[in-house]
Amino acid sequence: MNYFSSDFKLGILGGGQLGKMLLTETRKFDIQTFVLDPSDEAPCRMACNKFYKGNLMDYDTVYQFGKMVDVLTFEIELVNLEALLQLESEGLTIYPSPKTLQQIQNKGKQKDFYVENNIPTAPHQRFVDLNALKKALEIDELDFPFVWKCAQFGYDGNGVKVCRSAIDLVKLPDVECIAEQMVPFKNELAVIVVRAASGEVKTYPVVEMEFHPEANQVEYVICPARIDSRVAQKAIEIALKVSEAFDHVGLLAVEMFQTEDDEILVNEVAPRPHNSGHYSIEASYTSQFENHLRAILDLPLGNTDSKVAGIMVNLVGEEGFSGQVVYENIEKIMAIDGVTPHIYGKRETRPFRKMGHVTIVNENMVEARRIAEEVKNSIRVIS
Amino acid sequence: MNYFSSDFKLGILGGGQLGKMLLTETRKFDIQTFVLDPSDEAPCRMACNKFYKGNLMDYDTVYQFGKMVDVLTFEIELVNLEALLQLESEGLTIYPSPKTLQQIQNKGKQKDFYVENNIPTAPHQRFVDLNALKKALEIDELDFPFVWKCAQFGYDGNGVKVCRSAIDLVKLPDVECIAEQMVPFKNELAVIVVRAASGEVKTYPVVEMEFHPEANQVEYVICPARIDSRVAQKAIEIALKVSEAFDHVGLLAVEMFQTEDDEILVNEVAPRPHNSGHYSIEASYTSQFENHLRAILDLPLGNTDSKVAGIMVNLVGEEGFSGQVVYENIEKIMAIDGVTPHIYGKRETRPFRKMGHVTIVNENMVEARRIAEEVKNSIRVIS
Repeated sequence: MNYFSSDFKLGILGGGQLGKMLLTETRKFDIQTFVLDPSDEAPCRMACNKFYKGNLMDYDTVYQFGKMVDVLTFEIELVNLEALLQLESEGLTIYPSPKTLQQIQNKGKQKDFYVENNIPTAPHQRFVDLNALKKALEIDELDFPFVWKCAQFGYDGNGVKVCRSAIDLVKLPDVECIAEQMVPFKNELAVIVVRAASGEVKTYPVVEMEFHPEANQVEYVICPARIDSRVAQKAIEIALKVSEAFDHVGLLAVEMFQTEDDEILVNEVAPRPHNSGHYSIEASYTSQFENHLRAILDLPLGNTDSKVAGIMVNLVGEEGFSGQVVYENIEKIMAIDGVTPHIYGKRETRPFRKMGHVTIVNENMVEARRIAEEVKNSIRVIS
Repeated sequence: MNYFSSDFKLGILGGGQLGKMLLTETRKFDIQTFVLDPSDEAPCRMACNKFYKGNLMDYDTVYQFGKMVDVLTFEIELVNLEALLQLESEGLTIYPSPKTLQQIQNKGKQKDFYVENNIPTAPHQRFVDLNALKKALEIDELDFPFVWKCAQFGYDGNGVKVCRSAIDLVKLPDVECIAEQMVPFKNELAVIVVRAASGEVKTYPVVEMEFHPEANQVEYVICPARIDSRVAQKAIEIALKVSEAFDHVGLLAVEMFQTEDDEILVNEVAPRPHNSGHYSIEASYTSQFENHLRAILDLPLGNTDSKVAGIMVNLVGEEGFSGQVVYENIEKIMAIDGVTPHIYGKRETRPFRKMGHVTIVNENMVEARRIAEEVKNSIRVIS
């Protein structure tokens, strides 16, 4: 297949920042792209060849969009699955496969999948609704504490709650859910696996999420993770096993816990470029976006090694600010060697809205970590 | 000035591949761009906020375009200078400055400038037309051999001819020109200087153009140049002197000769991102395009050091092929670690048309050079 400066068309469902960064790669290779997104102000509106405004959960919209392209992919999991299954049955190439998406969209199914495939994960129970969960508590089939997760449509920590007693149940929505055993862990890790249609597979180095000591929020994504090499090896082996079990094509970001006794438990996966791989744009020989593109087009995969240490800091809207965004002190951080801001292109900030990220690269990890803290303490997303 | 996701508008005259790669950076920072280019199929048509089709040499077109933007730059030197001078006199910020462009657009003036500023360059004589040159030969004020260069509108080796005897003059056009003394040199080098409006200045490492032993064409741009460190230091000092003499803001690519006795002579300059800096996208901490943008917007400059060795191979249309382009063996070279093709987005190939480039990065220069040769011998731009 001739993809380069040709009539070939790649369709992308979703036009957010992940799509935008993917478009940097399609532009580099001059591969035509069509993008579907519900928002007129989608970051992908520019730099794609054709932009269509439409509802990603609507069967007809997604189906008609799919009929216009040669290969279809998505940058968000919340898309109409039935349309994808129908398009695939009609012969359209869709990567990642709708079947994988089906197993991932529902966290209960996803967890069952790990159990069936002998992939280590925290023990869980599935419930059709909140009532069923409450009944399980009543009859002692479930005990506090546990982690409640809504089975579908959760995003970025929404739909997750630690439940220590009955009072924590009060505000939970009445939806299909799972209860997961709380496992004490010392690190949250991630491995990005890239697998091409040909079966060629590579992994990026293990990254570590460093949490704020009090706020319990991820502050830094650090590559490579500052962990024992045997633990890293184990994490990579498990991530590869997950990718293989899904027979996955494209990027698969595997989020994992390193328990206090150095076991690795899979938390969840994302079948697409992922926040934990943004560092790769500056630090890796081949960025996660380029490798995702290579994988879904069945091109040879690029080198996933790092040139230098990389740390990523998310830029989220500051609490108390809404409206036309201002990146306070952005010039100050740009004066530091190896610091690159990425601005996603959302004009309006809101508290906690993902507005961009900053990558810090350095030959020396200790220095990178010092600079990352300086960046984190300097830049503010306000209005 | 708030550039990021704001109403600020950067205007770019010219919509070719240099502009396209600059747009990758404006997208990364979400800075609004307007582009003017005569071609409907300009590589910049996508990924800018607004595209205007128009003649870059037309006074009114350039003037009206300039009135719509907050800062104006160009990615090609062949633009209407009078319009720029008028816009500047009306208060528009234009970088690089029209004055610099004025001195550079005419190679005779450019050479005079070096002489006036005590910058080493090969001796030259200026002629108003071909007849004047012929007269100088007749009266022995000029001797064979020399290098003839047309004074204006030359591009990529067009408008340059080595003249060894009267027969070489036959096909020369009757235009303003210079005759330059032939200086035997052992290396062609380049240094990219980036200078911000604030006066902050940085240089990229010296790069070396490696020529094909027979065809006398540049085959590889190699960073860092494989030269003595004292010669490299001298080249950098001279490049800085040139940038300062022009009081230049933005990127300035300074092309130089290393003579057989290790003198450095300035050949010519380009006041914009340059082919000799394309390697920087993959090899440097900050690409030449990002630093050009930082400089003209008076943002702090990024680190110009390299993470790894970089080599660039141009992709030009093969002789004997015209029409819808095919990049033969592109998949083969993409399978090699550290190889990144850039496809400019021109659908039609023609003999010698610049269609893209390939960057090879590696920790080890010898290995990079070996791979560059493999790339060069594999990929072909055909139809």
